[in-house]
Amino acid sequence: MAQPAPRTGATEKPSPKPAPGIPSPIANPNPIPNPSPIASPDPAPANGTPYAPCTSRLPGFYRRTVEERRALLGDVLSAEARAVIAAGLSIDVADRMSENVVGCHGLPLSLALNFLVNGRDYLVPMAVEEPSVVAAASRAALFARAGGGFAGDADPPIMTAQVQLDDVVDAGAAARVAERRAEILALGDSAIPSMVARGGGCRDLEVRVLEGGLVVVHIHVDVGEAMGANVVDTVAEATAPLLAEVVGGRMGLRILTNLPLRRLARARVAIPVATLGGVEAAEGVVRASRFAELDPMRAVTHNKGIMNGIDAAAVALGQDWRAIEAGAHAYAALGGSYRPLATWRVAGGALCGRIELPLAVGTVGGATRVHPGVRVAFEIMRAPRAGELAIVMAAAGLASNLAALHALAGEGIQRGHMRLHRRRCVEGGGDAR
Amino acid sequence: MAQPAPRTGATEKPSPKPAPGIPSPIANPNPIPNPSPIASPDPAPANGTPYAPCTSRLPGFYRRTVEERRALLGDVLSAEARAVIAAGLSIDVADRMSENVVGCHGLPLSLALNFLVNGRDYLVPMAVEEPSVVAAASRAALFARAGGGFAGDADPPIMTAQVQLDDVVDAGAAARVAERRAEILALGDSAIPSMVARGGGCRDLEVRVLEGGLVVVHIHVDVGEAMGANVVDTVAEATAPLLAEVVGGRMGLRILTNLPLRRLARARVAIPVATLGGVEAAEGVVRASRFAELDPMRAVTHNKGIMNGIDAAAVALGQDWRAIEAGAHAYAALGGSYRPLATWRVAGGALCGRIELPLAVGTVGGATRVHPGVRVAFEIMRAPRAGELAIVMAAAGLASNLAALHALAGEGIQRGHMRLHRRRCVEGGGDAR
Repeated sequence: MAQPAPRTGATEKPSPKPAPGIPSPIANPNPIPNPSPIASPDPAPANGTPYAPCTSRLPGFYRRTVEERRALLGDVLSAEARAVIAAGLSIDVADRMSENVVGCHGLPLSLALNFLVNGRDYLVPMAVEEPSVVAAASRAALFARAGGGFAGDADPPIMTAQVQLDDVVDAGAAARVAERRAEILALGDSAIPSMVARGGGCRDLEVRVLEGGLVVVHIHVDVGEAMGANVVDTVAEATAPLLAEVVGGRMGLRILTNLPLRRLARARVAIPVATLGGVEAAEGVVRASRFAELDPMRAVTHNKGIMNGIDAAAVALGQDWRAIEAGAHAYAALGGSYRPLATWRVAGGALCGRIELPLAVGTVGGATRVHPGVRVAFEIMRAPRAGELAIVMAAAGLASNLAALHALAGEGIQRGHMRLHRRRCVEGGGDAR
Repeated sequence: MAQPAPRTGATEKPSPKPAPGIPSPIANPNPIPNPSPIASPDPAPANGTPYAPCTSRLPGFYRRTVEERRALLGDVLSAEARAVIAAGLSIDVADRMSENVVGCHGLPLSLALNFLVNGRDYLVPMAVEEPSVVAAASRAALFARAGGGFAGDADPPIMTAQVQLDDVVDAGAAARVAERRAEILALGDSAIPSMVARGGGCRDLEVRVLEGGLVVVHIHVDVGEAMGANVVDTVAEATAPLLAEVVGGRMGLRILTNLPLRRLARARVAIPVATLGGVEAAEGVVRASRFAELDPMRAVTHNKGIMNGIDAAAVALGQDWRAIEAGAHAYAALGGSYRPLATWRVAGGALCGRIELPLAVGTVGGATRVHPGVRVAFEIMRAPRAGELAIVMAAAGLASNLAALHALAGEGIQRGHMRLHRRRCVEGGGDAR
């Protein structure tokens, strides 16, 4: 099963091969015309028959045993990778990742199916304790396929260092920093030579004067395939003494901001209303969107549902989910009133949704380096670049949002949710409430 | 090792026995006068000597092997519990928790030490992929002990249902709902009989008129020891048809809000400045706090550091961290400008910090029921009530914040952080950047 499985049984055509590298910003401004059939449930292949390679449409997958699911993923999971996910995280690796380690905390590692994003199929690994998150995302991604899947784009990987300078008395600080811009950026670059060698480095700076003699210098850094926290912190620490001298202030904090406004990811989708059960269902989603647009108390929950999908993928892929959460919610609050990250409208017979949020994700460094299960999760996604990963995660957030609104605007969330919940309760021996 | 280990070796007195049940709100308005000595590092007990029972001061714990750490926790971990954390999550349980499961995703399960909260010692279980989070929280909690530890309080466990009603034309909706208040709350209660039997239930309602004929009815529900999402969703669905009739509108969403403004938790601490290395270090923390108070770009990162500790505990304890994150950041944005959840000042020779945020956490239901490792994590915390857990998690957030600001205002974060990062890189075979 280590080599690609033969194409048999399944009904989908494989997706077109994507262009290499990160999709360029504003690529695919409109949803791609339907490149693959589907949307109605179709029969699973006979037991033991592999699915078509490079598809994320795996009908009947949820009914398989765990062992069967692993075996059926022969085209994305080598025998070695299957052994890694079967073994779980070793205590030795866990002990090196953190401090005072006494064991491993396990979360179910699942695959969200049906994701077609910018014409490429993705199995999206997810790790989360909450039932229904994976099923809901998979269901909404299947709806999305009927409209050609998700389209998306991501900004270049620019992260921002903040250098705090206190007790600044001279109003000309900004002009003096601007004069020595090249020198400051070069000093920052000199602290991150291997990032510069890989094409990243310091790109720009700006000076902000806050009240009370507090000046903040921002340095914008291209961090390539990294999440970038360590790179940016290094730049901040390396440049701070020079900045303190130039500005004439006392050095304070030197660290990244977790609100990377220059590193947004976007995804969008247009789904024929018939796929969703008709215009009334689609309009229910739109009314739910309007509710979130008008009411911050609702927008919080709307965005929480989005983050169910994004965080579940982030955890499985070894990303810093606290950083992603902080950036997402602070971005939602940027305009002065907390608002939804994704919105929905009906247009041209389709339910159209879009999402935009900062997504600082990396394919190198941190847990991606040390955690074997994370490396397998990247294999399952067929080794995306960082920008590509951000787009797929945005799509996962949009799918989670659609699934929640579609269910809530219909019969309510409890009916479907309680099915799994009751199963849990039976296992746990308690009552259903 | 199943019965309590004898008290030997260690230098601490056991903490005073806490009052049973949830600490009442506004209890301990001031930090408790120093009830336990410590703050300076003291020697670890000889190898194999158990630590004193019911303390969270475990000097030298970090230098032990994983197996030794487990054995040394004889007073909080039964042999059965040790076996559970050694085994990790079974694939069978994982497969019942989520959908399309192919394995278990492991995170290191660690113990944050030194937490003294409202006079009680807690070992705080944490699961997180980021290095230094556990060490930093433990270090700051040790500082806090020098000021008598953390004090805190939590609101009663009130969660809020939202019922959306569209196309409302009649302006008298609010008055009509108020007239039938008792009937509506009774109908809500009738849908959650076992919660009512345990002392919870519907407590209050309010009507909000948003623009465009959109009316939202909030029902506030006491959810007892639960996180409460399922309880509140059930109330929303049960009362919505009656509300639609009374208001004269079309039923929309029926679901909780993840911004539980009536369920806040607070923690505070006052640490002698000498403990922190002098007044300059303490003032550096205050300047860092001021920076976050003035600048949303900094406040995001400030709060991200807080959530490092809170989420790490949330994951280990089976809580819905997306809900906690959404509530925390939206609460930070409530005033119209995104602000820090924790702030610091120097007063009376002490560095004083306080944190306040919504914390919807439960000790029953969800993963607490189904996940054996989560049950052991609750054992390690000696079975806190939900309100008590919220206070400890708020303290963990405050500790994480202090550790970050103390390091950042001093030599910078990279020095300490890079030590662990380099160790990782050596393991991973890559370079350090």
